[in-house]
Amino acid sequence: MTLSLAYLGPTGTNSETAALAYANWLASNQQAIATLCPYPSIALALQSVVKGKIDYAVVPIENSIEGSVTVVLDTLWQSTDLQVHQELTLPIFHGLLSYSQSLEQIETVYSHPQALAQCQKWLENFLPQVQLIPTKSTTEGISLLKDDLTAAAIASPRAAELYQAPLLEPDIKDSPDNCTRFWIVSSQKSDRPSNEEQVNQGSHLSLAFSLPQNAPGALVKALEVFAQKEINLSKIESRPTKRSLGEYIFFIDLEGNFHDAQIKDALAQLSACTEIMRIFGNYNLLPISVE
Amino acid sequence: MTLSLAYLGPTGTNSETAALAYANWLASNQQAIATLCPYPSIALALQSVVKGKIDYAVVPIENSIEGSVTVVLDTLWQSTDLQVHQELTLPIFHGLLSYSQSLEQIETVYSHPQALAQCQKWLENFLPQVQLIPTKSTTEGISLLKDDLTAAAIASPRAAELYQAPLLEPDIKDSPDNCTRFWIVSSQKSDRPSNEEQVNQGSHLSLAFSLPQNAPGALVKALEVFAQKEINLSKIESRPTKRSLGEYIFFIDLEGNFHDAQIKDALAQLSACTEIMRIFGNYNLLPISVE
Repeated sequence: MTLSLAYLGPTGTNSETAALAYANWLASNQQAIATLCPYPSIALALQSVVKGKIDYAVVPIENSIEGSVTVVLDTLWQSTDLQVHQELTLPIFHGLLSYSQSLEQIETVYSHPQALAQCQKWLENFLPQVQLIPTKSTTEGISLLKDDLTAAAIASPRAAELYQAPLLEPDIKDSPDNCTRFWIVSSQKSDRPSNEEQVNQGSHLSLAFSLPQNAPGALVKALEVFAQKEINLSKIESRPTKRSLGEYIFFIDLEGNFHDAQIKDALAQLSACTEIMRIFGNYNLLPISVE
Repeated sequence: MTLSLAYLGPTGTNSETAALAYANWLASNQQAIATLCPYPSIALALQSVVKGKIDYAVVPIENSIEGSVTVVLDTLWQSTDLQVHQELTLPIFHGLLSYSQSLEQIETVYSHPQALAQCQKWLENFLPQVQLIPTKSTTEGISLLKDDLTAAAIASPRAAELYQAPLLEPDIKDSPDNCTRFWIVSSQKSDRPSNEEQVNQGSHLSLAFSLPQNAPGALVKALEVFAQKEINLSKIESRPTKRSLGEYIFFIDLEGNFHDAQIKDALAQLSACTEIMRIFGNYNLLPISVE
């Protein structure tokens, strides 16, 4: 079996590391060969799955420092076709790449906004005067370094190796526990036999809902459904409905399986007190380690 | 009385429009003259207040399309000194600026990531092939337009006028209800007499809390405090604690005054079931219209 995986490219990004880790898992566990397809944005990687061109998109959903990747939440809410198939969590390493010999020479630092944000304390301490320039991926700035000794880029040590750029500082991330959750997203229309099997065994469930307008206490009522049944919510996040200020969609992750009677009951009750409810998937967390 | 206002510059940004509107309000209502001080980032604008260099920072907190401005939430949580003094809401207008005569010639669009996100549907429909380049403010890309007929920038019609750049499309935002909430943030150490008066009259209260670890249902318990007293929450938002994946800080906006007995009770109860609780301010929404 051959499968295609879309991810935020180019080669050397953290999304590629996640896609490679998933490809290894597929090879070992499902005897499947995966082809990796880089896309210039997370939105386009997800669109490739909606359009049926690609089997799975491997997309970051949440980082332990910077929080949710909102484009993924918004796209899942707006699309009725995408579903979360599996999840994996990767440790994140940020190095400072530069052809300069010392930090004193650096005037500009390039990287993806999420990486700049995850290293902001280190940058304030060691490079307080530099200009930070956002790029579309962590690797985009690397090509600019050779011609400019005053420039640096934040990217993974793996990217430094792949692009043969010097690693001036191997680890500049602010938190030792920096890690990112990735979702493997597929199309509900897909006829892959693994989809159904997955739902039967899924340990985690993600969903989102909007609430009836002008209903004070509506959010608490919705959350009480889970509390009464002692269903543990591992995450809650609000996003604007994009209709008007002060109207939100709530995204929830919980532990449980769709076929469990308690969960079934809770979802039926929740559906009754929400405006729109959407279940994104019932999936497993893959035990993946990065080589 | 002379007051200084920090905001995300340079001239022509939406933050400057908000700072100007607040300066007008100060002139009419408090006989104060305000000096506007542009800063290269929202973080530095807030830092200027912490350091006591500037009286107030005027910072965007939430947009109706793109959601919260997370750097403001994170900075308020981490600083024990900043407080929300007042709030104002501005309608947001996004135009497409370019020296090109037609959309067909455009290959690159520059703007702040929030503005690019707020116009993404229009861009997908009318300029699906262009490269989107994030900049530090909505006005930064305007200087690049004159030398490049294939480039465009998303900025306010006011910026087009200020920088004398042609407005190719006057309104490209995705939602007619696009508006942004701004907070006027001051230092708690400030001895401005208006601070205390403000708290006595404030109609809105913003706070944040973290929860004891491994306590299932702790969030529902915290929210029930408000539901039982029929205190309306106008917003709830989660952000990572930055300690480890799955631990959150919850940011809440509610209607009420700190001196009201119900609110006092609710905050005391909330404090007992949270780990850390921080009250950002009890403030008024200013009735400001933009000329």
